Amino acid sequence: MEARTPSESLAILTDFVLTGETNSLNNLFGGELLARMDRAAGIAAGRHSRRVVVTASVNHVAFNKAIPLGSVVTVEAKVSRAFTSSMEVYIDVWVEDRQSGEKTKANEAIYTFVAVNESGTPVAVPSINPQTTLEKQRYDAALRRKQLSLVLAGKMKPDDATELKALFVS
Amino acid sequence: MEARTPSESLAILTDFVLTGETNSLNNLFGGELLARMDRAAGIAAGRHSRRVVVTASVNHVAFNKAIPLGSVVTVEAKVSRAFTSSMEVYIDVWVEDRQSGEKTKANEAIYTFVAVNESGTPVAVPSINPQTTLEKQRYDAALRRKQLSLVLAGKMKPDDATELKALFVS
Amino acid sequence: MEARTPSESLAILTDFVLTGETNSLNNLFGGELLARMDRAAGIAAGRHSRRVVVTASVNHVAFNKAIPLGSVVTVEAKVSRAFTSSMEVYIDVWVEDRQSGEKTKANEAIYTFVAVNESGTPVAVPSINPQTTLEKQRYDAALRRKQLSLVLAGKMKPDDATELKALFVS
Amino acid sequence: MEARTPSESLAILTDFVLTGETNSLNNLFGGELLARMDRAAGIAAGRHSRRVVVTASVNHVAFNKAIPLGSVVTVEAKVSRAFTSSMEVYIDVWVEDRQSGEKTKANEAIYTFVAVNESGTPVAVPSINPQTTLEKQRYDAALRRKQLSLVLAGKMKPDDATELKALFVS
Amino acid sequence: MEARTPSESLAILTDFVLTGETNSLNNLFGGELLARMDRAAGIAAGRHSRRVVVTASVNHVAFNKAIPLGSVVTVEAKVSRAFTSSMEVYIDVWVEDRQSGEKTKANEAIYTFVAVNESGTPVAVPSINPQTTLEKQRYDAALRRKQLSLVLAGKMKPDDATELKALFVS
Amino acid sequence: MEARTPSESLAILTDFVLTGETNSLNNLFGGELLARMDRAAGIAAGRHSRRVVVTASVNHVAFNKAIPLGSVVTVEAKVSRAFTSSMEVYIDVWVEDRQSGEKTKANEAIYTFVAVNESGTPVAVPSINPQTTLEKQRYDAALRRKQLSLVLAGKMKPDDATELKALFVS
Repeated sequence: MEARTPSESLAILTDFVLTGETNSLNNLFGGELLARMDRAAGIAAGRHSRRVVVTASVNHVAFNKAIPLGSVVTVEAKVSRAFTSSMEVYIDVWVEDRQSGEKTKANEAIYTFVAVNESGTPVAVPSINPQTTLEKQRYDAALRRKQLSLVLAGKMKPDDATELKALFVS
Repeated sequence: MEARTPSESLAILTDFVLTGETNSLNNLFGGELLARMDRAAGIAAGRHSRRVVVTASVNHVAFNKAIPLGSVVTVEAKVSRAFTSSMEVYIDVWVEDRQSGEKTKANEAIYTFVAVNESGTPVAVPSINPQTTLEKQRYDAALRRKQLSLVLAGKMKPDDATELKALFVS
Repeated sequence: MEARTPSESLAILTDFVLTGETNSLNNLFGGELLARMDRAAGIAAGRHSRRVVVTASVNHVAFNKAIPLGSVVTVEAKVSRAFTSSMEVYIDVWVEDRQSGEKTKANEAIYTFVAVNESGTPVAVPSINPQTTLEKQRYDAALRRKQLSLVLAGKMKPDDATELKALFVS
Repeated sequence: MEARTPSESLAILTDFVLTGETNSLNNLFGGELLARMDRAAGIAAGRHSRRVVVTASVNHVAFNKAIPLGSVVTVEAKVSRAFTSSMEVYIDVWVEDRQSGEKTKANEAIYTFVAVNESGTPVAVPSINPQTTLEKQRYDAALRRKQLSLVLAGKMKPDDATELKALFVS
Repeated sequence: MEARTPSESLAILTDFVLTGETNSLNNLFGGELLARMDRAAGIAAGRHSRRVVVTASVNHVAFNKAIPLGSVVTVEAKVSRAFTSSMEVYIDVWVEDRQSGEKTKANEAIYTFVAVNESGTPVAVPSINPQTTLEKQRYDAALRRKQLSLVLAGKMKPDDATELKALFVS
Repeated sequence: MEARTPSESLAILTDFVLTGETNSLNNLFGGELLARMDRAAGIAAGRHSRRVVVTASVNHVAFNKAIPLGSVVTVEAKVSRAFTSSMEVYIDVWVEDRQSGEKTKANEAIYTFVAVNESGTPVAVPSINPQTTLEKQRYDAALRRKQLSLVLAGKMKPDDATELKALFVS
């Protein structure tokens, strides 16, 4: 399988915040945004692997900014690193102001997907070649996140998580 | 108001065809695609005008291609021409094949939106400067479509629809 | 196949405008109304043909009247003309005022459906016998609309669209 | 307030059984049909009273017939009797067969609505004059049902429910 | 089949009243609550029978209390009595006040489900042993309700409905 | 404010996996489960604080088990620790087998919510007293997770994250 670039997988989902998706403060439900990000990220992972993909995990997501009813929200998802059969997808969420047209960052999130065949068994995916500086940073950080995830799941000893350990031990 | 370019209004809505949106042949409902196009086009018109916009009309839309469940559909909407308070939005719909990654054109559609203030009264919108050859073609054709629409609504005499009449009388 | 009358296909879909279907002015989304009209028209075409039907095209639709949240909307769809395997469906949309009970016309729209078999291939449909004056007018106009649609799609020369040409050349 | 007839309130809601509304046997969920009947009956009660109406109760409803995915379901609701501020609405549900076009009765149901003002207080509604034999039967039976409802709620002694008691004591 | 207790079937569905589920007074639609109760009751009946179950009927339901947007609603469903292949499910609905945390009863409802095999044929279900005083009261009353249902459906003569008749004739 | 116990906030949301919520392998979408967990966790946080709450972040979530269409899924959410104005909510997800009635763990997830007043400003919440062994373990781990979250957000130096550092440096 030939390697691909992150931008080949870029999926953009721009849509309104509709009335059925808001809480009692008239802001977008966190859970609804999680679902939109899951769909955009799944499309990016599907484009990279050209396979059926399933959500394997969601990394830490912070909701820094309330997104009011009627806003235009843009979810941009791009594969940041490919492992054997899993792909880390990096998601940037933007909200735009109607009057000024200005876009501000609302969220970042990282989802991991696994490519599977029709019976649900994981299959290999192409590797990825990051191109831009940001893509390279996210590619490198993806390894640390994978180690953290394995440590938290008890599948890797903290001592073996070399990339991660370096954060705490100089 | 300063003129804008069509690409400043470009809205991209990529999403799956979900199970609740398909007919008994497991293809996307025409009506559901009409609703998605309306949302994407409304976002494009909102970006051009930086106003609340409402759908004024839908031009002829042809559904040439069935879009099966699970497909990834990309709706791209861009303002093609601005009139006093109305904007014509041109929409291209693409479907992509999971295995090959190839995108094929599924539909084109043209919606017209009107910018309004908070009480629903139409307000003026910026003019538009088409840049690419395709944008210029669509800009020119927009005038003929407006005339056709006025003729069909009985608000313009066929004889005054000079652009349109030229099609039938050489 | 025996011919049928338009009223045999009449489908009536009366429903509220619900909260999840409105824009930021609290009026029904254009796209949502397009989807309701598609369902009602699909039922009418299915009744006429007794087949699975798929949306083939939507003619020009004008949205003349904002429809506020909580309104009762009635969509009435009736086959106006049948061609070999396609059917034109004429749709009238009414909104009613709660206090007076008065119904006012909100929209008209024309959708075209094609009858298909289980593998999606077009199949023949019965012809139609219009009964009322209005049904006869719509039946006659359907031919002009079909020609316009073929001309716009580049599948008929303007010169051959005799019904249509007559509008512009006396 | 002038009396009205049942047919002035007739609300017809014809729609497909969509994919998101079916259980694991691919038949319409009972709960989904209850919700559709509630909307149609609410429209009928709103037409009779020209007021905001709220669901007060649902009488016994039997689901005699599974309604498969893709079916066309017609819900017809008509006010059967008006009391001080409440209205009994009688609902007939029909399913039609695509091949034969034949409609068969799937359900009957009876809902009661109360007309309220903007602060939710009950207000008086017009009385009703049944016209057809069926409308008269349903009008008469409505009184028995009201008594049964009051007895079951402990708000009427069985002994005072004269209409109802006659069923059991000859 | 071994008998089970009502509490083995207890299904709890706590959820918000979301914006898309409210009427023009901003209260939960009766029909939406009927649908939620149907899902919770279906889960309870499925747990008791470990079979696919379908809604057979809904007994009288009274809506005593408006439930405003944003409320937390708890639907608790428990099988109250099992017959040959049918199960009566008793449903209690609670609404809680955000400030005080106090829960108040909003509704009671009784649904009947039938257990079926994959082809939709009714199959036998385990019997039930009520444990608490309330469970025993509801178990006893279930027989009267079944008789009433049969009488109303014309499938039992009022004279044979011994349990029910006792209410009216002392 | 008086301290509360975790079980006072317990929210249980048992519901079917419905047809509109599944991917092309007929399993529950990860994004849909994220949304359900958000609603249940929001209810738990609302019960603990008796305030409006908004999602602040989602910790690492692993999807270990595909959840097929028609399954009964139980989401149980309980506040695990309260900080000044934020609350960590621990969520356990169970899927049950229809034939055996056996429940198996499908997921765990941790969401953080902030209590706000009507203008969206954070407000103080009661502290919490864990009771069971599991509640105490989760209470202790919550502090480590909070430190990790602050380190990842660049708001705390790894060196000051004493609880967390202890994992990597013995």
